[in-house]
Order: sequence, then structure tokens, then C-alpha cells
Amino acid sequence: MGYIEEFFEFLSIPSVGTMPEHKQDTLRAAEWLRQRMAQAGIQDTKVLATRGQPTVYGKVTAKAPGAPTVLVYGHYDVQPPDPLDQWLTPPFKPEIRDGKVFARGAADNKGGVFAAVAAAEGMIRGGGSPVNLKFFFEGEEESGSPNAPGLIAENKDLFASDLAVSVDGGGLDPGTPVACTGSKGICGLEIEVTGPAGDMHSGQGGGVVNNPLNALAAIMASMKHLDGKVAVEGFYDDVIPLTQAEREAFARAPINDEMLKRSTGVPELYGESGYTAVERMMGRPTLDVNGMWGGFQGTGTKTVIPSKAYCKITCRLVADQDPRKIVDLIDEHIKKHTPRGVTVKVTRGGMGVKAYLISLDHPAMSALIKTQKELYGKEPAVMRLGGTLPVSRMFLDTLGCHLIFFGASSADERVHAPNEFFRVEEFERLRTGLPVLLDELAKALR
Amino acid sequence: MGYIEEFFEFLSIPSVGTMPEHKQDTLRAAEWLRQRMAQAGIQDTKVLATRGQPTVYGKVTAKAPGAPTVLVYGHYDVQPPDPLDQWLTPPFKPEIRDGKVFARGAADNKGGVFAAVAAAEGMIRGGGSPVNLKFFFEGEEESGSPNAPGLIAENKDLFASDLAVSVDGGGLDPGTPVACTGSKGICGLEIEVTGPAGDMHSGQGGGVVNNPLNALAAIMASMKHLDGKVAVEGFYDDVIPLTQAEREAFARAPINDEMLKRSTGVPELYGESGYTAVERMMGRPTLDVNGMWGGFQGTGTKTVIPSKAYCKITCRLVADQDPRKIVDLIDEHIKKHTPRGVTVKVTRGGMGVKAYLISLDHPAMSALIKTQKELYGKEPAVMRLGGTLPVSRMFLDTLGCHLIFFGASSADERVHAPNEFFRVEEFERLRTGLPVLLDELAKALR
Repeated sequence: MGYIEEFFEFLSIPSVGTMPEHKQDTLRAAEWLRQRMAQAGIQDTKVLATRGQPTVYGKVTAKAPGAPTVLVYGHYDVQPPDPLDQWLTPPFKPEIRDGKVFARGAADNKGGVFAAVAAAEGMIRGGGSPVNLKFFFEGEEESGSPNAPGLIAENKDLFASDLAVSVDGGGLDPGTPVACTGSKGICGLEIEVTGPAGDMHSGQGGGVVNNPLNALAAIMASMKHLDGKVAVEGFYDDVIPLTQAEREAFARAPINDEMLKRSTGVPELYGESGYTAVERMMGRPTLDVNGMWGGFQGTGTKTVIPSKAYCKITCRLVADQDPRKIVDLIDEHIKKHTPRGVTVKVTRGGMGVKAYLISLDHPAMSALIKTQKELYGKEPAVMRLGGTLPVSRMFLDTLGCHLIFFGASSADERVHAPNEFFRVEEFERLRTGLPVLLDELAKALR
Repeated sequence: MGYIEEFFEFLSIPSVGTMPEHKQDTLRAAEWLRQRMAQAGIQDTKVLATRGQPTVYGKVTAKAPGAPTVLVYGHYDVQPPDPLDQWLTPPFKPEIRDGKVFARGAADNKGGVFAAVAAAEGMIRGGGSPVNLKFFFEGEEESGSPNAPGLIAENKDLFASDLAVSVDGGGLDPGTPVACTGSKGICGLEIEVTGPAGDMHSGQGGGVVNNPLNALAAIMASMKHLDGKVAVEGFYDDVIPLTQAEREAFARAPINDEMLKRSTGVPELYGESGYTAVERMMGRPTLDVNGMWGGFQGTGTKTVIPSKAYCKITCRLVADQDPRKIVDLIDEHIKKHTPRGVTVKVTRGGMGVKAYLISLDHPAMSALIKTQKELYGKEPAVMRLGGTLPVSRMFLDTLGCHLIFFGASSADERVHAPNEFFRVEEFERLRTGLPVLLDELAKALR
């Protein structure tokens, strides 16, 4: 890897986009990236300001006219490095050990971004790109991409493309490619239940007032059937069912219920009957309480009936559920299931994000799968992300282009945790593989 | 009130029995009380050590042989004074304003204790007591009287009596006497629900593992019917039903559902149908969550599925429910209603306390009601305490004697809160009223 010193330079900039004290570092990383892109021969490079962290743009004109345009997506912001004392070497002093580059952001996602730039450089110097390239390297992925929708909508022409390729997102074990057909959407809300005007002694309030903690438990319990299926009316109405082809493909993925049971440590896997846990994780919507609290949490006993009880809920959505409609349905459900004697306030958690889905039959997926077979010498595992990549759906809704995932990351890289790393081998596979994919896409999207 | 300076001296000792830094002060209050009792002519005064705070004992022999023996109960420990900044005058610098003595412990219960000593002094100097008197002034009431059962059991002969009279506990408004026919028992437990071995990202765990917060909500919701009636099998089996006489008496009490609704600020009163809220508070058992927590409680969103969820439960019991049996029943209920995919650990909260009940027909109750009519010029309100006075049942179970409440406290005295006070008028009523009650009891219990 001839790029190692430069990659280390990129990794040593602590671009923790979520931390105000690293605002200047994040800007510095954006400018470093823009300069490196320009040096690679990428044209029209810009650091596009937003209300938050900027997006770095650039473009490459295809060597032949009439070629499709591909938007390469990645992000240069990184997660906070805490807890610092668990890092074997400092998070922003990269080090290679055993063929792995250890640093915050190495895998998520500076490795992918820098490999894409290196790949573009190679193509430019070697005779040109088979497709028109555009680059969208954002600085707010770890913050949920709050300013991306506005930026994309205001710069539709600049970003207009036939397909997006994400170098973020990845796979299972090194050596096993993943063909990802979607990511989940998300929506959330908070519930505040109020009983008596102030905290009460349970000898005075017991039998007199409804306890907001008991009432909240009743509300939350009403939202799910015993098997874990969501009981909110209309919740599944817009769900696009898993196709038989997808279910068969998921079943062939090198991940199964037995592995999930072992890795999570639960006595029994749990969820909507009629689906495997793998199918539920990848392709069925879920509703979870992420936090719940009220009353006395200390040691010992305090016989209080609290005035307030709280909980936070998020749903992971699948296509074609609408996050606003789902929050509406939950809101109605809460109203219908609020016990007597308490009042409930629901606070909606922002706009939410829609799920993203791409058909296995899409020509870009065929090109991806063909490329992966060539690069890895085996069939990719067909999967969907249980998590959310906000931009995937934004590109589709605003630019009309689908996105495919071409990350080279493996599941063991301690993304978001101490001692994050990226394999040199994976960097090389991405750098040399991206041109192969673009060749295939040039043919597929013509 | 000729006792004011002495009462102030008693009140200025910060006998906060629950706080280790006030251990010496609490001992000092016990010794101060013993000396004052001896000075009053009470015989055989002792400070009886326990593992915690001591109990102060003394006795007075009746002026005539064959008289019954009455055990006067009260406590000299006080609640912590926090929050200090809300006191108009320091909690341990007593002050009289507007006929009220302001100080921590003035109402709960040093006023009652000191008035009882003053009453005994009056009788001793004025020709003797109509009954044999024993005194049991404890220092752990605010800690739940953990060492009282042992002390009573080990000193059965010393404390042996025909009746106990509590100068703790009280009433409604000044000028309205209360004839209290019981206090509730209590039992408690904690639930710990474990889902995955560690906290999970909801995109990875959603649909795969059961969320311990959702599971806990289901467990808690299963414990109560929608109207608030407890759904734990067998919970009501040993409940002694309210008698028609009690229900009629409760209905005449100067407290009603409309007042409760106003004072608690709830949109609607709540509980087991078929009873008024007053009846439920005084005479029906309840089950309440006192605290519940797990997952993310901060601002914003964290899409976590936590490994653990917790809650604390207490029940207020009525006669003749057994606290251990009730905890057993709840434990069985939890086992039966634990959803798949999680494990549950139940921690029992000590031995619990049984409810106390005395019939309106008991001769001591007739003597009490007759005395109250004489002292206040009106019928007492018949009520039961929604709260728990542990010793009431202990005296009955260990010494075989019932207890009646002869407190002079009013509901507005800010017991356990800043600016606690006791009316001088109430102190006087207790001091002069106790000999009247003892005269009646001498006749009733002969």
C-alpha cells in the first residue's frame, strides 16, 4: 500500500463531527480531503457549507461520451473516541499491526473514502474513468445527516446521477462479499405520562390515583403482541412483503439464528412469528423502547407514587412505511390505550427516515454481484441492513437514483468502539475493485 | 404553655435517626428524654439499646390496684430536614409564629412524645394515674422500626400491657378528631429483567432479541386490571372485607373523593371499581410501581436495546394479608407472565409488615370515641391510615394488645417537609386530653 502515509495523515485529523470542540478539526479534514481529491485529478472540487459540517464534492468526466453518471458516497466524520483508556494506541495516532490500520475512523469511513479517491486517481492516470463520477463525502453521517436533505435538494443539478455507490457499509467476515438490498428507516417519539400533580406517598395515593409508571407499562404493553408483533393498528399496512427470492437469499447468508442466539446471549430469540430472526432483523419493521424511567431508582425502598413517567420509543421501518404516518398511528394508539386517571404527552422525534430498498433484479445489483464474484471468487451474501443509512433514501427521493453498497468493511472492525481498525487488504480490494465495478456499471446502465 | 422552653430544647437536638452523622444527636435526644421522664416522676426509666437507635422506656404505677396497663407509644427520631433552603427558620432552631411551633419533628412526633410526658407529670403530681403506664418511645420509626420486633420479643414482660396508645398519627383539620381503626401493611420486591448479554444497537437487535424494557412493561401491565384491581392470583384471598358500619363511617368522614381529586390534581380518581377512593385508600390493598428504569434517559435519541430493565414494587396490604405470602404470589405471577426471550430475577424486600385492624366495637375504641366527643365537642371521623405504622401490628402479635391512635396532629403540618409545625393548641389538647382518655380506658378495660 503506497498510500499509507497519506492515509495516516487523514486519520490523524480528529474529525469528530458531533463534538463542538472538534469543529475546526472536522473542517480541516474536509479541506484536506478536497485538496487530495484535486491532487488526484478530480475536477471542480468544493467544500460545500451546510448549517453543520460541510460536504466535499468533486467530479470526473468519463473517458467516453454517453457514459452513465455515478455518485460516490462516503463520510469523513468519525465517532467520538471514548472511552479513551481502552485504546491500545491513541485513536488519532494510526498504527499498523498485523495487517490492520488501527485508528478512529479507519473503517468508518475514512478507509472507504480514501480508497475511492485513490481508485479515481488510478483511473485518471491510467486512461480515464468508464463512467462520469461525482463525489459526495459528507461530514454529518454520525449525526444522522441532518443537513443532507437540504443540501441535495438545493443542488439537484450538481449531484444529478444515474446511480449512487456507497463506500460506507459493509459486510460480514473479510473475504465474504455482501450484496445489500436495503436499509431500514427510522422514526421515534417520547411519551410523558402525568398522574398526580406532585410525587405522592403510596399510602396516600395508592388506590386513589393512577400511578403513571403502571399506566406507562400498560400503554407500552398494549403496543406489542406476546410474540413481539407490533399491535399498533395499521403498522404493517404499507410493508412490502419479503419476496421468496429474498427469503431464499437471506437463508443462504453466512449468518443464521443459531449464530445470533450465541452472539446476543439471550435465552431465546424473539419476534414476530412466521419469520426467522435473520428475516426480522433485515426485512421486518420493529418497535423498541430505548429508555424508560420514573420514580425512585436508588438503593432500598421509597414508597413513592411519582407524578411523571417517561419513555423513548423508536421504530425501525421497512419500505414502504412512512415515518410520519407510523408516528401518527402510534400516537392514535397511545390515545386509545391511555388508562383513565393520567394524561399523556407525546413528543415526536423529528421527521424520521424512510427505509431504502433496491430490487435484486435492478441492473446495478446484477453489476454489483458480477463484480463481487470476480473480486472474491464467490457469490455474495444477499442481505439488508437492520440499521439506517439516511442518504440512501434521500438520493432516491430527491435525485431519482438508487444506491448500491460497495463497502469493504468487515463486521469485526470495532466500528464506534475502541481499537477500530481497517484491514490493508480490504483497502486494496476497494481501491482496485471500484474500477471493476464501474466498468460493469458502465455496461449495465448504458 | 409552660413547657415551651423545654420543648424547644428537645426540638433543638437534631435526632435524625436515619443519618449516621446524627447518631450521637439521636442518642443525646434519647438520654434527654429519659432524664425528663425521670424528672416527671416516671419510674424505672431506661434507654434500651438496639442494633440501631435505642428505645426509651419508663413506667408509672396506677393510683389504685387492679387497674389495666397502657403502653404509650411515640418516637423521638425525626426526618432529615432537606431541602434546607426552603425553611423559613432553621429546622433545629424552634420558633413560635402564629400559635405554631416551627421545627423539624415538632409534629412528627416530638410534640406528641413531650405532651405525653407532660401529661404523666401532671397526673403523678395531681394524685396519680388511673392506669398503670408504660412508655415505648422509639428512635427508628422513620427507618421503618427494623429493631422493634426483636426488642419487643426479648422484653415481653417489660412491655406487657392491656392496650397500646400511640401519640403518633393524627388527623385531618385541627378541631376534628379521628378514630382510626387500622393501618396498612406493606411488602415489596424488585424485578431485574435481562435480555441480551450487553446493550445492543436497535438495528441489530430489533426483531432478534426481546427488549427487556418492553418485557418489563408486559410483566407490570399483567399485574393490574384496567380498573386498577390487582390481577395477581390470590391477592385478595385473605382480605377482610370492609364492614357496612365502616363504610358508612368512612362516608361520614370529612374527606371525600371530590377533595381527593382536587388535592392530588389528577384528571380522574382511579382504582378498583365498587369502592370510593376514600374506601380504597383506607381499606383496600394496592400494588404500585415506585420506580422503573432502563436504557437511555438523556436528551435526544439513542437507538439502544438495553441489556437490563428494573423496577421496584410495593404493596400496601390490609388485614389479614400476609406480606410473605403476597410476595410469593407476585413472584409466581411474574414467573407465569415473563415473556419469552428474557430472564427475570426477583429480589424480595425484607420481611414486610402486616396490616393492623381494630374493630369499632372494641371497648378501647368506645373509650376513645367517648373521650374525643368530650374533648372536641363532636363525633370523631372514623378512618384507617393508608400508610403503615409497623409497631401497631407488632404489639398485637407479640404482646397480644391492641393499639389505638390518640395523636393530635393535623394534616397540614408539613410532616416530612420543610417548615414542619405543631400547633400549641394541639399540644395542650393532647397533654390535657390523655388523662381523660386514660380515665375512660380504666373503666372500659377493667
